[in-house]
Amino acid sequence: MTPLNPELDLELTRLLKAPPAKVWRCWTEPELLKRWFTPHPVVTREAIMDVRPGGRFYTVMVIDGVDHASDGCFLAVEPERLLVFTDTLEAGFRPVAEPGLGFTAMLTFTAEDGGTRYTARAMHGKPESAKQHAEMGFHEGWGAVAVQLEGVAQGL
Amino acid sequence: MTPLNPELDLELTRLLKAPPAKVWRCWTEPELLKRWFTPHPVVTREAIMDVRPGGRFYTVMVIDGVDHASDGCFLAVEPERLLVFTDTLEAGFRPVAEPGLGFTAMLTFTAEDGGTRYTARAMHGKPESAKQHAEMGFHEGWGAVAVQLEGVAQGL
Repeated sequence: MTPLNPELDLELTRLLKAPPAKVWRCWTEPELLKRWFTPHPVVTREAIMDVRPGGRFYTVMVIDGVDHASDGCFLAVEPERLLVFTDTLEAGFRPVAEPGLGFTAMLTFTAEDGGTRYTARAMHGKPESAKQHAEMGFHEGWGAVAVQLEGVAQGL
Repeated sequence: MTPLNPELDLELTRLLKAPPAKVWRCWTEPELLKRWFTPHPVVTREAIMDVRPGGRFYTVMVIDGVDHASDGCFLAVEPERLLVFTDTLEAGFRPVAEPGLGFTAMLTFTAEDGGTRYTARAMHGKPESAKQHAEMGFHEGWGAVAVQLEGVAQGL
């Protein structure tokens, strides 16, 4: 695991009341992901997930009736343990034409107290990008969806 | 394998007179890479290669006495078959602060006629980037170093 760089990384950790196998399913099955991936009332109306290194991770969220598409690429996949993806590359590792936020997300899942120690890190290339992502509400947004994620996982 | 996109990709293929195992060594061992990686008289004076997905690929070439460093990240590693890296990410899949050319290189090695069918593809996000890379001499440069690569591999 790459050490956290406080100038470039944002990180959130939660103890979820569901086992890693269920949390993993919520993160890798499109129909489950759509149920928790964006903070209510924002809806994720589409998700395409080819969960393997080089596979596509495409989502469309709807904010105030307007579609916002996001394309990315999975980089590392270790079932029930580690999931890494980036919005700087698209399917097949091709660089994207127009980078969005420009970050790599690293999610880890570890069994703890009958639940899952869930850690979500967003890694950036420049301090300004990390600052912008923080100001856009990284902690509030990822915090809110972690609660939604837990709810969906508990219902499985 | 992602299909070639003629607007975004540059590709070169050669039949090298050395087996995939030796060509692979030349591509993955720093002391061997330094012997062929840049077209003479340009010298690669340093190479750091952590050949695994997420591992660092760092080189320093010397052009007219001036150091030019390049940092990147390996994305896919299938020994003697496939090597993928990008300059849009650095070690640990972190986005780079200042992208250089912004491409992903995909190298394939296949046994053919006692040698190796070697294909090097550079994938870009925008047609302008592919055009710029072509104008900088992709075909001449990668063609010249393919001959050097063959020479080093034959000597193993």
